[in-house]
Amino acid sequence: MNNEEKRPLILITNDDGVFAKGINTLIEIALSFGDVVVFAPDAVRSGMSNAITAHSPVAYSRLYSEGNLTVYSCTGTPTDCIKLANYALFQERKPDLLLSGINHGSNASINVIYSGTMGAAFEGCANLIPSVGFSLCDHSWDADFSAARGYIKSIIGLVLENSLPSEVCLNVNIPKGAIKGAKICRQALGHWQEEFEPRQDKNGITGYWLMGKFLNREPDAEDTDDWALSNGYISIVPTSVDLSDKKSAQAIKNWEKIVGN
Amino acid sequence: MNNEEKRPLILITNDDGVFAKGINTLIEIALSFGDVVVFAPDAVRSGMSNAITAHSPVAYSRLYSEGNLTVYSCTGTPTDCIKLANYALFQERKPDLLLSGINHGSNASINVIYSGTMGAAFEGCANLIPSVGFSLCDHSWDADFSAARGYIKSIIGLVLENSLPSEVCLNVNIPKGAIKGAKICRQALGHWQEEFEPRQDKNGITGYWLMGKFLNREPDAEDTDDWALSNGYISIVPTSVDLSDKKSAQAIKNWEKIVGN
Repeated sequence: MNNEEKRPLILITNDDGVFAKGINTLIEIALSFGDVVVFAPDAVRSGMSNAITAHSPVAYSRLYSEGNLTVYSCTGTPTDCIKLANYALFQERKPDLLLSGINHGSNASINVIYSGTMGAAFEGCANLIPSVGFSLCDHSWDADFSAARGYIKSIIGLVLENSLPSEVCLNVNIPKGAIKGAKICRQALGHWQEEFEPRQDKNGITGYWLMGKFLNREPDAEDTDDWALSNGYISIVPTSVDLSDKKSAQAIKNWEKIVGN
Repeated sequence: MNNEEKRPLILITNDDGVFAKGINTLIEIALSFGDVVVFAPDAVRSGMSNAITAHSPVAYSRLYSEGNLTVYSCTGTPTDCIKLANYALFQERKPDLLLSGINHGSNASINVIYSGTMGAAFEGCANLIPSVGFSLCDHSWDADFSAARGYIKSIIGLVLENSLPSEVCLNVNIPKGAIKGAKICRQALGHWQEEFEPRQDKNGITGYWLMGKFLNREPDAEDTDDWALSNGYISIVPTSVDLSDKKSAQAIKNWEKIVGN
């Protein structure tokens, strides 16, 4: 094995599109670890969860290649990006690591189920690639990622060294502003209380714009991601693509007795 | 409390659209239990996972109302449907039950993360509404749902009687053809091996159509949904929207020591 083969192969995507500041920060950090292939949406695809494009084709093109970095853009969702990259580029050699983000905005608590950033990480994870999603709790397009850089570098180093358990990826969220340290957390239980802003379009049809207010149902639980972020810590949540709840399965075992008539 | 108030309020959606045979079968079954409000996509939205429409408005309209049934169609994703229904219709009284489906096609194993049917169930579950997604392992538009009817009725009855644990919904998949009974299962671990069909469009641009082959990594595990379905049983998987993996969190607790420089 020569030196070139020893460098880790790192696949990067996001859901804010290939030109976002967050992904370009992540690319810079990842280049200090290995060879980087970016395969990211050509524009914003936030809130896409694990959506796949099943009924129309997806296209991609190579934007540029420079040293250890090659960048592709893709017309699909974040999950499409991982699927198409695996098919088009990685049949011979699987990536050693998938990084998604850095998202502009939080993906903590229940946001994890809507997030395109985490959707891509789930897709990598399901395909047995160690996968990490990074998000900064700041939606602004010119968000300041500088305080996060050192921590992100540490986390990438740990994952490359130790890998991750099968079916488990990391959901890493970073507070805005000064960072006190990192906490290994669980997902805070909560949901969005629906609010929409109704607006009439020029034809008089009412369209509803999604707003909403996040309700944390356990704001005092110090082992949760939301608590960590509110208190200035990075939250690292090991997150599983095996959604089965084994305890509940035990509790309803006798439902197997149902009959069809 | 009068009799009318005692009837359960059942919200129904799907991802194949409001005119699909599957949802109309589910409506018929649900009407024997209570008052039914359908709030479903106006056309096919499969593979939409928990995608939300964040950057454009969503509209809805009432199609008809007849006895204990009212039917709305919505321009959004399955998750949008649940969010908008909760906002527009259920601020005073929450539904007692959310049913999603019956999907035309399997949502077992890793399909659960891509499924719009299950996305809607997750949304209900996160909002503390007992939620069940139903899917038949037959993609055909004219699929035969008759063998499933009695079982679906039994499951709805059990959920109305016993409710479900917080953060847990049911992913129910039904085999095509004769049904031997039901099994309480866990999600089989597996993934899709990517395959795409490249086709040039009329401008010479290559578009990639998603195909793929499902790989079950544990085909002999008799406690999994995929095993149950392959052997003629309905699979009932208690499925959680709390994706945290607590065991892994314990294992990497010392990663908290990372520093930012």
